[in-house]
Amino acid sequence: MPQIPKIPSVFLNPGRDKRVAGGHPWAYSNEIRMDSETKSLEPGTVATLRRVDGKPLGVGTFNPHSLIAFRIFSRQGPIDRAFIAGRLKRALDLRRRLFEAPHYRLVHGEADGLPGLVVDRFGGVAVVQARTAGAEALLGPVIEALIEVIAPDAVVLRNDGAWRQAEGLETYVRVAFGEIQAPVPVIEGNLRFLADPVAGQKTGWFFDQRPNRAFAAGLCRGGGSMLDVFCHGGGFALNAAAAGAEHVLAIDRSGAALELARRAAELNGLIERCTFAEGDAFAEMERLGTEGAKFSVVACDPPAFVKSRSALKSGLKGYRKLARLAARLVEPGGFLFLASCSLNVDRESFAAEAARGIAGAGRGARVIYTAGAGPDHPVHPQLPESAYLKAMVLHLD
Amino acid sequence: MPQIPKIPSVFLNPGRDKRVAGGHPWAYSNEIRMDSETKSLEPGTVATLRRVDGKPLGVGTFNPHSLIAFRIFSRQGPIDRAFIAGRLKRALDLRRRLFEAPHYRLVHGEADGLPGLVVDRFGGVAVVQARTAGAEALLGPVIEALIEVIAPDAVVLRNDGAWRQAEGLETYVRVAFGEIQAPVPVIEGNLRFLADPVAGQKTGWFFDQRPNRAFAAGLCRGGGSMLDVFCHGGGFALNAAAAGAEHVLAIDRSGAALELARRAAELNGLIERCTFAEGDAFAEMERLGTEGAKFSVVACDPPAFVKSRSALKSGLKGYRKLARLAARLVEPGGFLFLASCSLNVDRESFAAEAARGIAGAGRGARVIYTAGAGPDHPVHPQLPESAYLKAMVLHLD
Repeated sequence: MPQIPKIPSVFLNPGRDKRVAGGHPWAYSNEIRMDSETKSLEPGTVATLRRVDGKPLGVGTFNPHSLIAFRIFSRQGPIDRAFIAGRLKRALDLRRRLFEAPHYRLVHGEADGLPGLVVDRFGGVAVVQARTAGAEALLGPVIEALIEVIAPDAVVLRNDGAWRQAEGLETYVRVAFGEIQAPVPVIEGNLRFLADPVAGQKTGWFFDQRPNRAFAAGLCRGGGSMLDVFCHGGGFALNAAAAGAEHVLAIDRSGAALELARRAAELNGLIERCTFAEGDAFAEMERLGTEGAKFSVVACDPPAFVKSRSALKSGLKGYRKLARLAARLVEPGGFLFLASCSLNVDRESFAAEAARGIAGAGRGARVIYTAGAGPDHPVHPQLPESAYLKAMVLHLD
Repeated sequence: MPQIPKIPSVFLNPGRDKRVAGGHPWAYSNEIRMDSETKSLEPGTVATLRRVDGKPLGVGTFNPHSLIAFRIFSRQGPIDRAFIAGRLKRALDLRRRLFEAPHYRLVHGEADGLPGLVVDRFGGVAVVQARTAGAEALLGPVIEALIEVIAPDAVVLRNDGAWRQAEGLETYVRVAFGEIQAPVPVIEGNLRFLADPVAGQKTGWFFDQRPNRAFAAGLCRGGGSMLDVFCHGGGFALNAAAAGAEHVLAIDRSGAALELARRAAELNGLIERCTFAEGDAFAEMERLGTEGAKFSVVACDPPAFVKSRSALKSGLKGYRKLARLAARLVEPGGFLFLASCSLNVDRESFAAEAARGIAGAGRGARVIYTAGAGPDHPVHPQLPESAYLKAMVLHLD
């Protein structure tokens, strides 16, 4: 029998085991017996979580400095390359059932049984985010397992996200395996986009909006026009143009993102229907409103306005303002797509601000579509609050 | 100028106008000045809602005996055939943008600006539900406006729903215009189903699950099998078979619904792939579980378990049991579709019970899809709680 390396134990305080025993993947720092030995464990240490009487509850990673102190990977260990490869295979099986082309979020943290780890896949390029000290500590076996399971040409570590601050981690971007020539192609439905996994926003592409882009594009089937503010790589804009929109105006404040969107429009033979403009979404919408511009569909997929709980009030105001400015630009009988990816904003609050903003523009409306992220962004059944993306489409009078 | 008929006024109590002034379509009975004149108004009377100082807030229908006493149709009247025809045209424009065939929910109450009124359309057959005294009182102009706007062959009144009790209305079913030969065809995507608008459940068909059926069916693209319990007219089952499922078992306790499902399977050339069985969903799932049966996808779209707030606790238990029994029948790596149409159950509670039930079956899982009703069931932006349908798909280990 192979020698199983001994791993440290972390103990829950008395009476704090029920939630974890019921399948919840986290233990909070105030639930853990923080004796000096436990406190001195390295952030990201693989450990066994135990009840106070010693009964093991699960194996995972521990960070004594994080509010979410223990993240359970499995009911029993070890957490090694073989274990991670097993989880990757399960995640891969699901995505293969969902998508024809190998372009998707392959791993979405807790829901895929790999807490703190995100992997976006662009064909042969895997882009990894380690969002926790535990995921960071496991990057060695994670990369080995990725090579085993999907045989990538390159693995990029995009460890420059805001998540890492709460875990006390430094930020960096590094090609950990192979070579990459950015931008890389992204296949979404019948379209080809371009993403920059090294220098682009987040991992380079927002796979989460895929079904929402398809729904919004479907509203342009008979023709019409779309305004896509915060257009990034052109996801909403090009889907709409391909579906039938005769004219699409795509706005972003990032010249680099716009350039990829423009090149993607050329690649798909849609450039004639598309106009790209660099600018601030709010300012441009104000200007278009003053000019009396109207579109069949206005799509607003902004970056997170509320990056912390303290920014909630001003962020909610931002969503309201966005809805008001955008509603003004929707032609009578047209549609407004709104989204929030702020984890700290719940769906009800977002919907309420959207309703206020639209009423503030003097427009009657009805919600015809409510959705979250696509199915390659699964949600752990016991972490419903981790469903960060809130999307809605309204039909306006 | 035409004579505008004088309509009664109903007054809000002091300080109770803010919500309504902000666009909310309801005033509750405790917000209304219930003097003897107001109390004596006929249920369903068209009236002007006014602030205590006489300022008009909207025109709508009043029922002194209902908790939701005033339902606003418009900021200004009159509410006549022409007004209703205008609302129907707006509703029709939206559905035409969404669907190729004229088979959909044409009117969905408040969200379509016609409080209390529901109209399902099966090509030339319109099936009307008047869920409130106000909608009931307006049935004359509603039928006339329907004839004007969609020129139906028949209009059926399905006024036998539970909604009517709270409004003090009697229940009845009647063909109010033209003639109908049940069952009638229902076109959904590339499939033809059969619905009975006179004797079937509700209006005869559940259009609300259309996009959810499409998503669940997509999971059968590569083959596999589906169990569809509570199959009604075969919506989930036949979509799955058409998408590629090699075998579908469809169960319902209504022999009449099953017969329509079976005939639809024949119509679509899918009968070879389908087995229909009459029986109780819970009992049949118990039996299948004992036999060790497994399916690639199990779809559970039950009737409302929680028909009143007092039934909440037992209803939630029902959803948990359903999830447990169904999860047991999902093959490893397969999918579970669960839905609740109980208005009194919120999404969080439903998801929590589903999670408990699946954990109770000893299965790990992740939520890959969360949705409500289809876009022909719009939601009034200020009545988010009216989004009664909660659907989810989980991928099981």
